[in-house]
Amino acid sequence: MTDDADAVRAWWRTSIIDMEPGKIAFRGHPVEALIGAVSFPQMIWLMTRGDLPTPEQGALLEAALVAGVDHGPQAPSIAAARMAATCGVGLNNVMATGVNMLGDVHGGAGEQCAELYTDIAGRMDAGTPQDAALDAALADWRTAHGKIIPGFGHRFHKPTDPRAPRLMGLVRKAAKAGVVQGGFADIAEALQTRIGQDRGAPIAMNIDGATAVIFCELGFAPPLARGLFCLSRSVGILAHGWEQMQQGGRNKGPMPPAYLPRYIPDAGET
Amino acid sequence: MTDDADAVRAWWRTSIIDMEPGKIAFRGHPVEALIGAVSFPQMIWLMTRGDLPTPEQGALLEAALVAGVDHGPQAPSIAAARMAATCGVGLNNVMATGVNMLGDVHGGAGEQCAELYTDIAGRMDAGTPQDAALDAALADWRTAHGKIIPGFGHRFHKPTDPRAPRLMGLVRKAAKAGVVQGGFADIAEALQTRIGQDRGAPIAMNIDGATAVIFCELGFAPPLARGLFCLSRSVGILAHGWEQMQQGGRNKGPMPPAYLPRYIPDAGET
Amino acid sequence: MTDDADAVRAWWRTSIIDMEPGKIAFRGHPVEALIGAVSFPQMIWLMTRGDLPTPEQGALLEAALVAGVDHGPQAPSIAAARMAATCGVGLNNVMATGVNMLGDVHGGAGEQCAELYTDIAGRMDAGTPQDAALDAALADWRTAHGKIIPGFGHRFHKPTDPRAPRLMGLVRKAAKAGVVQGGFADIAEALQTRIGQDRGAPIAMNIDGATAVIFCELGFAPPLARGLFCLSRSVGILAHGWEQMQQGGRNKGPMPPAYLPRYIPDAGET
Amino acid sequence: MTDDADAVRAWWRTSIIDMEPGKIAFRGHPVEALIGAVSFPQMIWLMTRGDLPTPEQGALLEAALVAGVDHGPQAPSIAAARMAATCGVGLNNVMATGVNMLGDVHGGAGEQCAELYTDIAGRMDAGTPQDAALDAALADWRTAHGKIIPGFGHRFHKPTDPRAPRLMGLVRKAAKAGVVQGGFADIAEALQTRIGQDRGAPIAMNIDGATAVIFCELGFAPPLARGLFCLSRSVGILAHGWEQMQQGGRNKGPMPPAYLPRYIPDAGET
Repeated sequence: MTDDADAVRAWWRTSIIDMEPGKIAFRGHPVEALIGAVSFPQMIWLMTRGDLPTPEQGALLEAALVAGVDHGPQAPSIAAARMAATCGVGLNNVMATGVNMLGDVHGGAGEQCAELYTDIAGRMDAGTPQDAALDAALADWRTAHGKIIPGFGHRFHKPTDPRAPRLMGLVRKAAKAGVVQGGFADIAEALQTRIGQDRGAPIAMNIDGATAVIFCELGFAPPLARGLFCLSRSVGILAHGWEQMQQGGRNKGPMPPAYLPRYIPDAGET
Repeated sequence: MTDDADAVRAWWRTSIIDMEPGKIAFRGHPVEALIGAVSFPQMIWLMTRGDLPTPEQGALLEAALVAGVDHGPQAPSIAAARMAATCGVGLNNVMATGVNMLGDVHGGAGEQCAELYTDIAGRMDAGTPQDAALDAALADWRTAHGKIIPGFGHRFHKPTDPRAPRLMGLVRKAAKAGVVQGGFADIAEALQTRIGQDRGAPIAMNIDGATAVIFCELGFAPPLARGLFCLSRSVGILAHGWEQMQQGGRNKGPMPPAYLPRYIPDAGET
Repeated sequence: MTDDADAVRAWWRTSIIDMEPGKIAFRGHPVEALIGAVSFPQMIWLMTRGDLPTPEQGALLEAALVAGVDHGPQAPSIAAARMAATCGVGLNNVMATGVNMLGDVHGGAGEQCAELYTDIAGRMDAGTPQDAALDAALADWRTAHGKIIPGFGHRFHKPTDPRAPRLMGLVRKAAKAGVVQGGFADIAEALQTRIGQDRGAPIAMNIDGATAVIFCELGFAPPLARGLFCLSRSVGILAHGWEQMQQGGRNKGPMPPAYLPRYIPDAGET
Repeated sequence: MTDDADAVRAWWRTSIIDMEPGKIAFRGHPVEALIGAVSFPQMIWLMTRGDLPTPEQGALLEAALVAGVDHGPQAPSIAAARMAATCGVGLNNVMATGVNMLGDVHGGAGEQCAELYTDIAGRMDAGTPQDAALDAALADWRTAHGKIIPGFGHRFHKPTDPRAPRLMGLVRKAAKAGVVQGGFADIAEALQTRIGQDRGAPIAMNIDGATAVIFCELGFAPPLARGLFCLSRSVGILAHGWEQMQQGGRNKGPMPPAYLPRYIPDAGET
């Protein structure tokens, strides 16, 4: 083999997969030893992290993946996927349309919340008491990003996002069983209390706040919180795209065609 | 250089661009000889076809590109781009979201219409009289694709799509000046008449029917009709994405939030 | 509520999700009853099909989802996702880039294979013996699509794709346990034998052939075979995008930069 | 009309387009008055800005659009588009794949450079002398973003990016003719000199540095610099995707298939 061949192969180096004709191994595990033996969430963990989780760790990850699959066609990613499904593209393109829109605002809250929890945990590990760590981290967040704290409050689900208490219950159960340590759950609940005090009214933890607890407890890096949410929401995107394909329609717009004719210029624009 | 290096370079061979440090040539033309000397439509032609068109050919292509830039936020591609613009992604992602939806149904009519014209022209070149060629091509189309004939009729612009007569006027003017031959314009108008006769009522030529005439007259392969439309509509997608960014909003859904709460299950589904 | 409000809501009707403030139900199941109670594959089934599968059905689907997660960076979807990860876009955009490329050729074989199996099963249900049904379906396929039969043969894994026998073993086990009927497994193996006879040499079943058996046995419509593959491969796309982000790099090209300078024009082009 | 209907229409308000059956106007101009009368770059300006530029302003914008169409298949956006073209997706999906990758790193330099020029101009407008404004703006940039200054230097084109001097010559000519003022050209050249002094060796202005001058001289907001680059590069993406479709191939990977088998694990990963 020439140096050129080596250079080309090195350019595409990876630790995720190794292949020879007739052989595939993921992170060192032959594929045939994984199929039928590990759960899909365990496989997600193996691929993104490099090691296999215990079944109990996999089950906690699974709860977070189940919780986030969909929030209906008012979510722009779902609406866009349904519209794409009427435009004559493949189901893969429909799914990509939705996932592509899960950006900083639409799909990034879990990642941002995991960063906030991690920041607080880091301050506590460095010796700052929890209350002071919360205050400092919140102050830094607000300076950098404004008043919206990711993971808390919901514009629709008031007073409670039904997914969060159920997920937090599972985290507490896993902590009791020694599957996770529970420190991030403590941080999240203390943060929830503090934000409520700051605004003078209780605030609910939302799904991003609760799934970020799970991802942090399980040791996922914050950016993977967004990746895992994308995997979860891809399920809803697929389901809605497929339902729309069965409903039919061509070039589905955002409102019924009867509302098309008269646009209303925006007075605020120049 | 080793055989390996040659193999790698050959894998990415192209006739479109050649580069050395400090030198860039497109289709054999140094980039500095093109900048400021050719129009953007001429550049589009050069890149996709390999040769430079005359200014008059470029101007006819330009008219088609100008005509197709936008059809408003009721078009799913525009609506999706505007929604993406509120999701925390980059303007390039906003544009990709819209272009990705210009599939067979939403962006493919120009290509299909160009194929139909080309089919008719081919039959005529082989000696079939125009009327018989039209009938045969239409019959084949309907068998393969159903009753909708691409390029004719518009669900909103009745009785006339204002873009089509203007574009056809430019084609006729170009034919008189010897820029194009005009045969595809003849075919399109005969096809329009025939479809009207078949349905018992006149039908308008729409923008896809008219731009397909231009693309065929100028010698573009039918699949490029879709590519050129994507370039044109990218302008509207950009403009709407940018307007939405200036209007602001977070996670813009397809309808005002007040309409969110009560979904209506589809009785027809199982 | 006005007729207008009703019309707008009806435009976005869905049977997948129902929401009120504080309440979310998927296909009639409150979300808090699903979280921690059903597996992620069961949730995928519920969302796309409308009913909850048994744990055993969910486990067979899970095996197919685990099997398809990745085939390395030589696959264009994986390579593109890794390149996107160096271009300054979000991890959601990285994932969308990969999924968007799982088209008819790259991600469609499972769907096409499921259609072929379904075609054969339909002929048998109508009374045609298996051998004649195979021959007729194969002949129709070859007429419409050419000589490549989706689901069989692999350009790299010779003589055997290691995923297929493991998956087929699980199908046979599930059939013995009454979880599935096994008819599609019979069809797939008979088809494998017949294609081998036709080409004069044994041919291996590949992952698409084996997962299509599972999807058909479980009652998924063929288009969902592509959707399920996209969910599965999204895991590898995420893992590779994330690995690339950790490796770093800016604007990663397909080959090391040293190979850039000299493009080789394609003699065959004009 | 009900309040509901009004609310729905207001949700999709726009100043870009107004339509009635048979009528389309962009920014108040009937479409039939634009087709054949304005250039494609003038139309791009009208759609994104709201007013029509003079032909001379349009011509300067046109030069920037022509300059940026392509930089060959070593660019990840072009490589990914070519790979997508072999995956069985539409030409619109091929184009979206490429444009989607023009993120902060791959397609954002023009926008960042325009922001830097605008920052310097703003300081000068506020009374700071040019040299001090340059120093302060550069220092802020380096603190926020690191040592790479967008718009200057090129990893391949050494010592000169051939596009930049040609574009700057056109800007200077336009300034002499009174089409633009030339202040941003002054800032860019002073910045180039200063960066060269800081590194102890002359540095070339690249295409992003030169097109940012044009966009700023013409009054485009910095984020539109990225949008305009996306329109320009879409041409190369289309040309390469189409060339690849004509070359054929299925599931084109980043390197020839012979290099597939042996991946090289990354020692630095865990």
